[in-house]
Amino acid sequence: MNQVYASIITIGDELLIGQVIDTNSAWIAQELNKIGIAVKHRVAVGDNKADILQALDEEQKQANIILITGGLGPTADDITKPLLCEYFGGKMILHQPSLDFITELFEKKFKRPMTERNLKQAEVPDICTVLLNERGTAPGMLFKKGDKIFVAMPGVPHEMKWLMQAHVLPYIAQHYQNGYVEHKTLLTAGIGESTLADTINDIEESLPAYIKLAYLPNYGMVRLRLTAYGTDKILLLEDLQKYFTLLKERVAEFLVADEDLPLEAVVGKLLKESNETVATAESCTGGLIAHLISSIPGASLYFKGSIVSYSNEVKTNLLGVTTEVLETFGAVSEQTVIKMATEVRKKLNTDYGVAVSGIMGPDGGTVDKPVGTVWIAIATPKDVQVNLFHLPFDRQRNVQQTAVNALNFLRKKIVDNKCG
Amino acid sequence: MNQVYASIITIGDELLIGQVIDTNSAWIAQELNKIGIAVKHRVAVGDNKADILQALDEEQKQANIILITGGLGPTADDITKPLLCEYFGGKMILHQPSLDFITELFEKKFKRPMTERNLKQAEVPDICTVLLNERGTAPGMLFKKGDKIFVAMPGVPHEMKWLMQAHVLPYIAQHYQNGYVEHKTLLTAGIGESTLADTINDIEESLPAYIKLAYLPNYGMVRLRLTAYGTDKILLLEDLQKYFTLLKERVAEFLVADEDLPLEAVVGKLLKESNETVATAESCTGGLIAHLISSIPGASLYFKGSIVSYSNEVKTNLLGVTTEVLETFGAVSEQTVIKMATEVRKKLNTDYGVAVSGIMGPDGGTVDKPVGTVWIAIATPKDVQVNLFHLPFDRQRNVQQTAVNALNFLRKKIVDNKCG
Repeated sequence: MNQVYASIITIGDELLIGQVIDTNSAWIAQELNKIGIAVKHRVAVGDNKADILQALDEEQKQANIILITGGLGPTADDITKPLLCEYFGGKMILHQPSLDFITELFEKKFKRPMTERNLKQAEVPDICTVLLNERGTAPGMLFKKGDKIFVAMPGVPHEMKWLMQAHVLPYIAQHYQNGYVEHKTLLTAGIGESTLADTINDIEESLPAYIKLAYLPNYGMVRLRLTAYGTDKILLLEDLQKYFTLLKERVAEFLVADEDLPLEAVVGKLLKESNETVATAESCTGGLIAHLISSIPGASLYFKGSIVSYSNEVKTNLLGVTTEVLETFGAVSEQTVIKMATEVRKKLNTDYGVAVSGIMGPDGGTVDKPVGTVWIAIATPKDVQVNLFHLPFDRQRNVQQTAVNALNFLRKKIVDNKCG
Repeated sequence: MNQVYASIITIGDELLIGQVIDTNSAWIAQELNKIGIAVKHRVAVGDNKADILQALDEEQKQANIILITGGLGPTADDITKPLLCEYFGGKMILHQPSLDFITELFEKKFKRPMTERNLKQAEVPDICTVLLNERGTAPGMLFKKGDKIFVAMPGVPHEMKWLMQAHVLPYIAQHYQNGYVEHKTLLTAGIGESTLADTINDIEESLPAYIKLAYLPNYGMVRLRLTAYGTDKILLLEDLQKYFTLLKERVAEFLVADEDLPLEAVVGKLLKESNETVATAESCTGGLIAHLISSIPGASLYFKGSIVSYSNEVKTNLLGVTTEVLETFGAVSEQTVIKMATEVRKKLNTDYGVAVSGIMGPDGGTVDKPVGTVWIAIATPKDVQVNLFHLPFDRQRNVQQTAVNALNFLRKKIVDNKCG
């Protein structure tokens, strides 16, 4: 298979001083992979002419498709458009459909007068194919050079995504797709990366050259991803499935999911299957578990809601944790989370009640209960089960890890209930 | 000023297929900027020898400091360490302090046997300075080549951050710091990027060459960032302050914050100053607003909790939204959010009650109430105020934008209360 490669160039000083996190590249890479285009290289440069030109020169040595985001806004730091015009030897002309669209946008949606700067956004190099942007004021631009293409898109994520889906991906699929890349992913929990590697060592060594295995550890879980490249899609999928099944059987004990789903989607699927519901009572996670569960479309089928009891007053008034329990055992205690889980399950009338209480840091730790101490309880109609964790991270990661631990605890409980 | 440049190389197939989002680079860039080191280039490559070698060759042409993350794990896809050993012409030797540390880690913390693979992690090239990693099993490595350094660190964020803070940043500050980069940031809301640019055009044009202005739009707000470069820190800060004050006065009407804070921190600061408290009642955001407010350290001073009423049953039982109101006006209505905000404020005994209810998509929209319809209410002891929004995005972004709109609405209300 003659692999087609893509490079992604992201433009903007904000990427180099760390003011924003680049989420566009990951999304673009995912979409390209789906149609068999491998990303060879990703590079971020500042709003600086020399650096952008150098990136354009460099990336076309390695890739057939060069996707560029950023630097198309209406302000003086946005220099990508004139620079591309010069680079490809064109001159700027007005693009009437873009002007019409922008004019309508300001009249009907923004309801404020259009400025000279916005008018300028409808100007494009005469040597590109204009990709009308129905999500914003900066049109996309596609430049051809030999058998290579360069596509410039705005850096605003939802505008870029719309342009990719409406124009760029269909174009690439039509002109460049000549093979397939297929991935299959397993999610495991409760086993370290090294032990996992030893467990599946012989399978890994038996993989043919066109199938690669990757280990992706995250928040105490490890994803195993198999990637296969080839031109015969049916054969490819067969082979991939064969090794995937081997891996799956080997790690059965630690298996969370045999597809690339976030944990909250795995939990959602299980609840939907068993026609059960859940509610959360959250102290230290401040609503994050509820947010994760509800981020899955269709969550209203199994998620009823949450009581976020950040203060002790709320634990007492809404979740029935008595001041006596709080004084004797503390807000971060087995007794407190048991009451929280039981009560939220009753109050919200669900099958499962999940409760967490912990000390996330940087302050609030004591000798007995240092930062990272977390109690988690799950109540069902039959029982309440608790778990104690000691997390070693900073505030943000402790909160995230607590949410993952609670969701995984819930997942196990649902699975146990099904089997028992 | 003889600017010192850094490049960041991130290694891992997961970055090129978009399975993980690179948050490390942004953090590293921020930290380098604080000590006056500008990041010139960021590049991501796969777990592939040729590509890593090429990146090493290329980046040292542009930068004095090359920071490398990823590919140091214990599994077969982690090839960075032997590759660097070969690249710099060394041989692998055992690093006793790392071995001692890893052994203790497994004995005391993980409480599971150490594998041969973990032992291997204590091996390092003999021509590097080893950076003991007290957060994990993969040591950091610093290689010198002429006046340049190459530092390899694991890709696990909290391990990388610890290594940077304990070893790498102090080393860079001592050997390379020869100037300063200072940033000052304003956050605005309620004004478009183009109009903002017109408003401050004369100030932007009067900036000296060593001060740059950037526009960073995000979720309907725009950050304005001034960046100054130079060797005389006092002079630099004086100049920066001068232009910053000019900008601040010009955009006063739209000013949210005169420092680089997330909106939830701005809200937190205001509440702390006025010694007031807040609670949220969330439907469509599923707890995200509570999570954002509580993500700020010290939030327990002003945040009491939340009732996430994802189902109508919970809206009725816990927030007193009658079935009559739900049937007549619907869950997404002015009447519903008014009741939710009033009731959560009363039940949780706070100064402010914030309520949101909306249709986030992809399903659930109707002709009267299309996807993106969102009602937000804020209750105070004196009144309740409501706002209706029509958001044009996908589920995830609608949820995020709703949280931002609610927090900004709350911010204005707090400011109004202070003034009135």
